[in-house]
Amino acid sequence: MSKLTASIKDALVSAGVRDGMTLSFHHHLRNGDAVLVMTVTALRELGIRDITLSASALFQVHAPIIAAMEDGTITGIETGYAGGDMGAAISAGKLQRKAVFRSHGHRPADIEGGKIHIDIAVIAAPTSDPEGNCSGKYGRSACGSLGYAMPDAQFADRVIVVTDNLVDYPLVDFSIPETQVDYVVTVDSIGDPRGIVSSTTRITRDPVGLRIAKYAADSILHSGLLKDGFSFQTGAGGATLAAAMYLKEIMLKKEVHGSFCMGGITGYLVDMLESGCFESLMDVQCFDLTAVESLRKNPGHREVSATQYASPTAKSCIADRLDAVILGATEIDTDFNVNVHTDSRGVIMGGSGGHSDVAAGAKLTIIAAPLIRARLPLIVDRVNCISTPGSTVDLLVTQYGMAVNPLNRELEQRLRDAKLPVVDIRELQARAENLSGRPQPLIMGDRVVADVLYRDGSLLDQIRMKELL
Amino acid sequence: MSKLTASIKDALVSAGVRDGMTLSFHHHLRNGDAVLVMTVTALRELGIRDITLSASALFQVHAPIIAAMEDGTITGIETGYAGGDMGAAISAGKLQRKAVFRSHGHRPADIEGGKIHIDIAVIAAPTSDPEGNCSGKYGRSACGSLGYAMPDAQFADRVIVVTDNLVDYPLVDFSIPETQVDYVVTVDSIGDPRGIVSSTTRITRDPVGLRIAKYAADSILHSGLLKDGFSFQTGAGGATLAAAMYLKEIMLKKEVHGSFCMGGITGYLVDMLESGCFESLMDVQCFDLTAVESLRKNPGHREVSATQYASPTAKSCIADRLDAVILGATEIDTDFNVNVHTDSRGVIMGGSGGHSDVAAGAKLTIIAAPLIRARLPLIVDRVNCISTPGSTVDLLVTQYGMAVNPLNRELEQRLRDAKLPVVDIRELQARAENLSGRPQPLIMGDRVVADVLYRDGSLLDQIRMKELL
Repeated sequence: MSKLTASIKDALVSAGVRDGMTLSFHHHLRNGDAVLVMTVTALRELGIRDITLSASALFQVHAPIIAAMEDGTITGIETGYAGGDMGAAISAGKLQRKAVFRSHGHRPADIEGGKIHIDIAVIAAPTSDPEGNCSGKYGRSACGSLGYAMPDAQFADRVIVVTDNLVDYPLVDFSIPETQVDYVVTVDSIGDPRGIVSSTTRITRDPVGLRIAKYAADSILHSGLLKDGFSFQTGAGGATLAAAMYLKEIMLKKEVHGSFCMGGITGYLVDMLESGCFESLMDVQCFDLTAVESLRKNPGHREVSATQYASPTAKSCIADRLDAVILGATEIDTDFNVNVHTDSRGVIMGGSGGHSDVAAGAKLTIIAAPLIRARLPLIVDRVNCISTPGSTVDLLVTQYGMAVNPLNRELEQRLRDAKLPVVDIRELQARAENLSGRPQPLIMGDRVVADVLYRDGSLLDQIRMKELL
Repeated sequence: MSKLTASIKDALVSAGVRDGMTLSFHHHLRNGDAVLVMTVTALRELGIRDITLSASALFQVHAPIIAAMEDGTITGIETGYAGGDMGAAISAGKLQRKAVFRSHGHRPADIEGGKIHIDIAVIAAPTSDPEGNCSGKYGRSACGSLGYAMPDAQFADRVIVVTDNLVDYPLVDFSIPETQVDYVVTVDSIGDPRGIVSSTTRITRDPVGLRIAKYAADSILHSGLLKDGFSFQTGAGGATLAAAMYLKEIMLKKEVHGSFCMGGITGYLVDMLESGCFESLMDVQCFDLTAVESLRKNPGHREVSATQYASPTAKSCIADRLDAVILGATEIDTDFNVNVHTDSRGVIMGGSGGHSDVAAGAKLTIIAAPLIRARLPLIVDRVNCISTPGSTVDLLVTQYGMAVNPLNRELEQRLRDAKLPVVDIRELQARAENLSGRPQPLIMGDRVVADVLYRDGSLLDQIRMKELL
């Protein structure tokens, strides 16, 4: 019995697709992914209705499925992130049911725990053999790690691998084993490489961004954590990459031999690995081609599952071993609660991803962001949506200075001793409001369009409807 | 909360050990393993009773636990192989309950399917970090693959890793992830390296063995299977290794580019990989240091789980992709049923291991054995224990010629066309009996001491009590 199936539609039929099922997708192809839209197109052609999408993240490239939300093919979405028009569509109430946001660590926990039951997992695989041994490291659509797809493959009732690079059996360097795969479909293209690995921005040249980055790196230097065995995570934004650049200089100068970097991996972190700043990279997602190539070649660069990255119910996870992490925010409030779900209009533009996971796990959680963006202050009385609880945030760094969460008095003392510009968060808030004025309260609809769950399963916040004019 | 625990006893207590539980063990340390005996010693000291051991295999080195079978600490054994005094003890009825033999592929299937519920898995790990990311590739007790331990780690309620080489977090090249591990115990030594990787015999110099090996290799050559993409498994016995040596010569001469070798891996198969005969080695178990080093260094040499090796309920497994396999036998009968469980006295001396799995999966299953051993004929009317059903065996090769299972007429024709010495199995049997006489029927006890299950879960045979005089 061959697993090779002529089309996604045939594979869905063979997998027993029917109304009301949950189908899952991973986001390693990011804004280049073609597989989710292909699959939803097939669902519509089959006349299937009332599907829940469990997608680790959704991007602008997925906007064509909004029509399937409007016609009742897709009535529920569970995700860690909804960017571009996908977020706006959820905010506009285009789903019949509330969307559910989980963090990247909470999602595999609920898959393993049975709270998310995946009927059919669809895995976009840059390379696969005919039995479904598959990898993201090879092929013209290479994306690197398949870490987010691993729990889906392990726990879904049926697993469909979709590839544009079918190779002879066995694919030796598989990331997901054949034992978990039911069907293999070959298509012309699973995605656009420009969208798959384009997300790394260059290190910022903006002096504001560089100052924030320098402050963030200096706060790590003086935190007491920067010693041999140090572990670190940062994102792919221009300022956080600049912080990594400054941190590299500090680590080389002070001859600090770090342990590991984690998370979405960029070429900048690869450079820190190769420079000897760190022993290893633990990689749940690659952000650029340098990271993909490093994962392929460097034994110190290891692919890990979303479970191992950050699941709160795993017997342990890497997030809990982190020393320092630098994260972003669209808003932060005076209790240090962070919003990364909604924009200044209250419209969904992202989601936690691993934000709340690593904030909870790291010894030092730094939020690095400019004090004013688009003429609006970063700091508010109460964030429009709590993505990450303030109790897990240690430090806010802006170009006008840094504010320490009063829960971490030791850190405040260390930073003050180092003569870093520590100020009260309310002072920073006042300064921002002096410069840009106090923002008008947002007017939101009554209808709840999304629940934001915390990684322990509790309801962290709810997002209400907001239709763009 | 640290997973590091002071002793195996403490870890067992923390894991909630109590009477009647099932504890599991893997056999990659083979006849050098110290961890199983250590654990049973701890169980006895704790006064725990009525334990079922689910061990992938048992060896002479485990004989000290016979005392724990006699005193009721251990009342049940489920295994794939029981060698030396361990087999004899089961045969002698020292267990209160029947032992259960499963193949190496059936065991993970029943673990995943819930028919074997492991309360506590004890994993002997040649290297581990403090969170239990562990590997068999490194350390002074390196054993290579940990493939048989993978399903245990995945499905057991509690997992204890026992190591004699604790390294800093994270162990990047882990085989079992921290997400599955509850406790980590460091001991002075998990085993004796001479017993761990000593099982490879040298290629036989015995002319009888060499003739059998040549016939086996020639039968593959003329089977129609030896072409590009060919896949192969063989054991570690002297004659089967000699067959691999002849096969290598044939493949190099005919420029056949094979696909993969599977199974327990020896330096001889590593040599075939490095010579270009095969693209890859799929490794569930290493038999010698050359294999361990190759697994560590050669990207074409891949560690796989017992599930992927041979589980009949996995969505696919490697055994089902095999072209040819050469296996041994203690007895074979005229219906081609094979016994690898009991010796000529009817005493348990081994078990299926993967024998019945790969026999079922391979296109060509060859049994290679001398026609007479210890003055007893190989071929009998009915084997004392059916380990592998004759319906899955294609060919018997002896030094006096080869017999083809009548179910495979195409093979018989091919081998006859190649002028190979094909004879009826009854002729071979008669020849053996002419040389050594017809053996006396065995006198066995009434009590059933072991069930032998087939990989589909059915009862294949039962082994009755046999006390040695």
